[in-house]
Amino acid sequence: MRLKFPMVAFALEVAMIVLFGIFVKYDIEQMDLHQPNTTNSTEVDRYLELHSLFQDVHVMIFVGFGFLMTFLRNYGFSSVGINLLVASLGLQWGTFIQGIVHSHGQKFYIGIKNMINGDLSTVTVLISFGAVLGKISPSQMLVMTILEIAAFVGNEYLVGEIFKASDVGASMTIHAFGAYFGLAVAGILYHPSLRKEHEMEKSAYHSDLFAMIGTLFLWIFWPSFNSVIAETGEMQYLAIVNTYFSLVACVLTAYACSSLLEKRGKLDMVHIQNATLAGGVAVGTCADMPIRPFGSMVIGGIGGIVSVFGFKFLTPFFTTKLRIHDTCGVHNLHGLPGVVAGVASIVAIALGASKTSTMAMQAAALGSSIGTAVVGGLITGLILKFIVRGQPSEKNFFDDSVYWKVLKVTKD
Amino acid sequence: MRLKFPMVAFALEVAMIVLFGIFVKYDIEQMDLHQPNTTNSTEVDRYLELHSLFQDVHVMIFVGFGFLMTFLRNYGFSSVGINLLVASLGLQWGTFIQGIVHSHGQKFYIGIKNMINGDLSTVTVLISFGAVLGKISPSQMLVMTILEIAAFVGNEYLVGEIFKASDVGASMTIHAFGAYFGLAVAGILYHPSLRKEHEMEKSAYHSDLFAMIGTLFLWIFWPSFNSVIAETGEMQYLAIVNTYFSLVACVLTAYACSSLLEKRGKLDMVHIQNATLAGGVAVGTCADMPIRPFGSMVIGGIGGIVSVFGFKFLTPFFTTKLRIHDTCGVHNLHGLPGVVAGVASIVAIALGASKTSTMAMQAAALGSSIGTAVVGGLITGLILKFIVRGQPSEKNFFDDSVYWKVLKVTKD
Amino acid sequence: MRLKFPMVAFALEVAMIVLFGIFVKYDIEQMDLHQPNTTNSTEVDRYLELHSLFQDVHVMIFVGFGFLMTFLRNYGFSSVGINLLVASLGLQWGTFIQGIVHSHGQKFYIGIKNMINGDLSTVTVLISFGAVLGKISPSQMLVMTILEIAAFVGNEYLVGEIFKASDVGASMTIHAFGAYFGLAVAGILYHPSLRKEHEMEKSAYHSDLFAMIGTLFLWIFWPSFNSVIAETGEMQYLAIVNTYFSLVACVLTAYACSSLLEKRGKLDMVHIQNATLAGGVAVGTCADMPIRPFGSMVIGGIGGIVSVFGFKFLTPFFTTKLRIHDTCGVHNLHGLPGVVAGVASIVAIALGASKTSTMAMQAAALGSSIGTAVVGGLITGLILKFIVRGQPSEKNFFDDSVYWKVLKVTKD
Repeated sequence: MRLKFPMVAFALEVAMIVLFGIFVKYDIEQMDLHQPNTTNSTEVDRYLELHSLFQDVHVMIFVGFGFLMTFLRNYGFSSVGINLLVASLGLQWGTFIQGIVHSHGQKFYIGIKNMINGDLSTVTVLISFGAVLGKISPSQMLVMTILEIAAFVGNEYLVGEIFKASDVGASMTIHAFGAYFGLAVAGILYHPSLRKEHEMEKSAYHSDLFAMIGTLFLWIFWPSFNSVIAETGEMQYLAIVNTYFSLVACVLTAYACSSLLEKRGKLDMVHIQNATLAGGVAVGTCADMPIRPFGSMVIGGIGGIVSVFGFKFLTPFFTTKLRIHDTCGVHNLHGLPGVVAGVASIVAIALGASKTSTMAMQAAALGSSIGTAVVGGLITGLILKFIVRGQPSEKNFFDDSVYWKVLKVTKD
Repeated sequence: MRLKFPMVAFALEVAMIVLFGIFVKYDIEQMDLHQPNTTNSTEVDRYLELHSLFQDVHVMIFVGFGFLMTFLRNYGFSSVGINLLVASLGLQWGTFIQGIVHSHGQKFYIGIKNMINGDLSTVTVLISFGAVLGKISPSQMLVMTILEIAAFVGNEYLVGEIFKASDVGASMTIHAFGAYFGLAVAGILYHPSLRKEHEMEKSAYHSDLFAMIGTLFLWIFWPSFNSVIAETGEMQYLAIVNTYFSLVACVLTAYACSSLLEKRGKLDMVHIQNATLAGGVAVGTCADMPIRPFGSMVIGGIGGIVSVFGFKFLTPFFTTKLRIHDTCGVHNLHGLPGVVAGVASIVAIALGASKTSTMAMQAAALGSSIGTAVVGGLITGLILKFIVRGQPSEKNFFDDSVYWKVLKVTKD
Repeated sequence: MRLKFPMVAFALEVAMIVLFGIFVKYDIEQMDLHQPNTTNSTEVDRYLELHSLFQDVHVMIFVGFGFLMTFLRNYGFSSVGINLLVASLGLQWGTFIQGIVHSHGQKFYIGIKNMINGDLSTVTVLISFGAVLGKISPSQMLVMTILEIAAFVGNEYLVGEIFKASDVGASMTIHAFGAYFGLAVAGILYHPSLRKEHEMEKSAYHSDLFAMIGTLFLWIFWPSFNSVIAETGEMQYLAIVNTYFSLVACVLTAYACSSLLEKRGKLDMVHIQNATLAGGVAVGTCADMPIRPFGSMVIGGIGGIVSVFGFKFLTPFFTTKLRIHDTCGVHNLHGLPGVVAGVASIVAIALGASKTSTMAMQAAALGSSIGTAVVGGLITGLILKFIVRGQPSEKNFFDDSVYWKVLKVTKD
């Protein structure tokens, strides 16, 4: 870490500044905000509304994802700290690469929409970070950010421009993609000692409460996440209402399943922190379709059930049999519910809820997202393992003191 | 807990889905958002503004109330976790029952206003939850949610439709109602061991800091709470400004009284966490009236004083003499300041600040809210005690490990 | 503390109520919100937008500054608690004194803009609070609030009305001013025992995580802070976008420098909590100028570097050589980056980015802000030390148990 990390971080920031200096302008004229005696109040409304939704997503990224991962008792600094670092790089790189792809290599103008797209591309990396949390170095994470966002932008282009699939909440292109990408990287970086629970891989009472800060801000603002790129008006309204009802139903089924599956009917904090959010993912792909409130509730309820069962049965199976160790269980919060989202959108289209996409195109989008993620994740994992290197040794897994000046870690 | 809780939770969610499937539609046409070349920008503004205020209230419900109750050292999981569970059920049930009452049993259309009303009805239950915190099971809380919201909707109908009283911040119909409902339930569920302080009924240094997260988000967004159902424009503006000035004045009097009443002039975290919010309740009923900023500050200042004195003198009296144990002191934060709010509105009307309500109708509304709450709370308490059952035994009061998988609870 | 603090707090609140009663009205007619069939949707938009930005700033003040200072292991109650107290007084006093200055002693009308200005003037005190944290009594802080805001309003009048300088994010008038004012007070209140680290002046693992709550909310909403007093439309848009890009670049350079300067390349939480925010300050003065995104990134990157170097080299120098002990390192987060902001604005104007201010006026504004702060801080420090008195003795520095009822402080 001595010099490698500062050099990588500096070099990436200088590269961003150079790329932005060459290619990026803000052009206010593009926004029609400058005309003093304008009649385009709708334009201004749209801008204000977008800024408000953008900020909600921003809270989700920095407070939501950052604190959600602080559940480990000795890895809180890295969770919230590397989350901030990775997101800050991702916002710049995501804004740049999406802009340059859409401008076909020309200079381009940026506004609030580009910042939103930068935020969204970054979420992909933060999801994958959850799968490798505690087992990867900061330098590796910076490189993974660059590679994953590039793969994300490629898949998004395929899904949106070629397949013309619907995915307003990006449950396939962000959540499923981020989860399977992270699992593929985690598979490459696997160490046999992870088979049985690592002695540092534990939560503490207060670290679980810190994680709930993340859960709650993610939960509260998820309707904004699913509606931020929706078309204005009707579709945006639908995306907000459907996500809201999916989430509330998901909470009840997640609690019920958690109690059902635990010894003596107790609740498990891991389920509450994560599975209560699965409803937001599960309804994401068809959130702007008129699926009726009870339809959202059914989808959200299924999301909560699937997620808890995933934590209980799939995660141990992945760890021991597939040699994939998923620290935060992102497969259960983002992967499985992302698949549910794709399937739900196919059912919704079959029932006539959309005229803009077809069942085949939705299936193609789901397949493309998972396929690109797995291939991209495997390649990225190999690059991190053999080219970037610097992965912490297994005895330093889940331990802040490797990367942070720590006085004394907590033991309760 | 083994099977009862999962069955109750599943059954309630299935019931909600069935009720929503039969009765609830979203009708975008009702919102006039769908006309592309519309001139109704005010309609759009209103929608955007409501969504923004709605989200503030949402933060108050999940982060505000959730973390405010984490002050107990060994009951943080339940505080923030059962808060999430109860609120998720309450949002569905509150939206449904308010809609069906107003539609007189017909199908009805829902939008952002219904979601706001769902949120508000839920707050009632979360306030009552504070009175019984640590002494009630999750299943009992789910049943209480159903019963209390039904009673709330009945009283709200009386106050708003029959008495036509003013109560923009719902200080009588939500805060006083929720407090006295909770106290009545707490009286029924009383156990003699609560007379002297339970060994688990203590805060810890960090649990008090977690609680401050709740306090601060409640404090910051209280102006949104008091203005979210105000009429647009002037009245909404008044509700925001008045609540703001009431809260800042309340902080100074609450700090002064806390120091005045404690040994050696020290400050008590319990007062700071709670009494600083009393100004938001106390000004709630007349917040949209032109009471002038200094009027708001007087009301808020009184709220802070009343609340601290309540914590110091009334709470011990309730516990030992009235056999009512109020865990969070909701009587001091919501009950007394709710009464202050009703009285303040009567004084304001006497001084000519409102033409839409009369002093008699305000007094009737206050009486109705407290009366309905006490009767409803007593009946609910009896149902919980003798029909639902499953209350934890007194040695398990205030202990997360009864309902949660907990590694080891904190001792500092 | 026994009677002094309650008397001071009560007396100040009564004084505020009297002053507001005599001088302050809200006049809705001034806002043009009351016309039902209005065509001025822009007016309404502006109001809504301002309320949204105002709330963001409010979150920064109460949650942001409050939790940022909880990093000390035994001083969390005072950090978040006195922050709330001081801010509540500051909001009232700042609103009043700014109003009375602009109305030249006449009655004046208040609206959302006055509340924003009240918030901003309060930030100055909260910054200075960081310099004296743990070494000052609550009563002293209340008096300092009154004095500092008066000095702030004087300097702001000079900068805005006489020099007509640009400072949209108030990096000179708030951040540099607050930092140097606080340093001057800290110099007067210095005690030789602070030369070597006080045994209570330590963070704990969880107190550092609480502080990150503050950091993240400050970071997320800083674009709102820098744009809240910007002219509507184009300038506001620029202030948001420029601050956003300055902040993301600042994070990468702050992390890089922290690792570069620490032993074995480790990261230091103090740097991450503070220096990642320096980009928001550094770009503040020229945030509404068309400096291009890469220009913002350069300024933010410099802010992050300067801030970390300040923590590493200047803070120890100040403590041991200048006899100024800066508890939170506000010089590195607000002072130095505030100077960078002033210099950046001079460079930007030299490059033609603004027609409304000149290089000379910017330099005068920077000089005036620092000069007024130092003189005002020295006078205030002397008043606190010799007239107000009641400073805690050095063995009680950084210890909540002096002012708070504390069961047992944490040791980890």
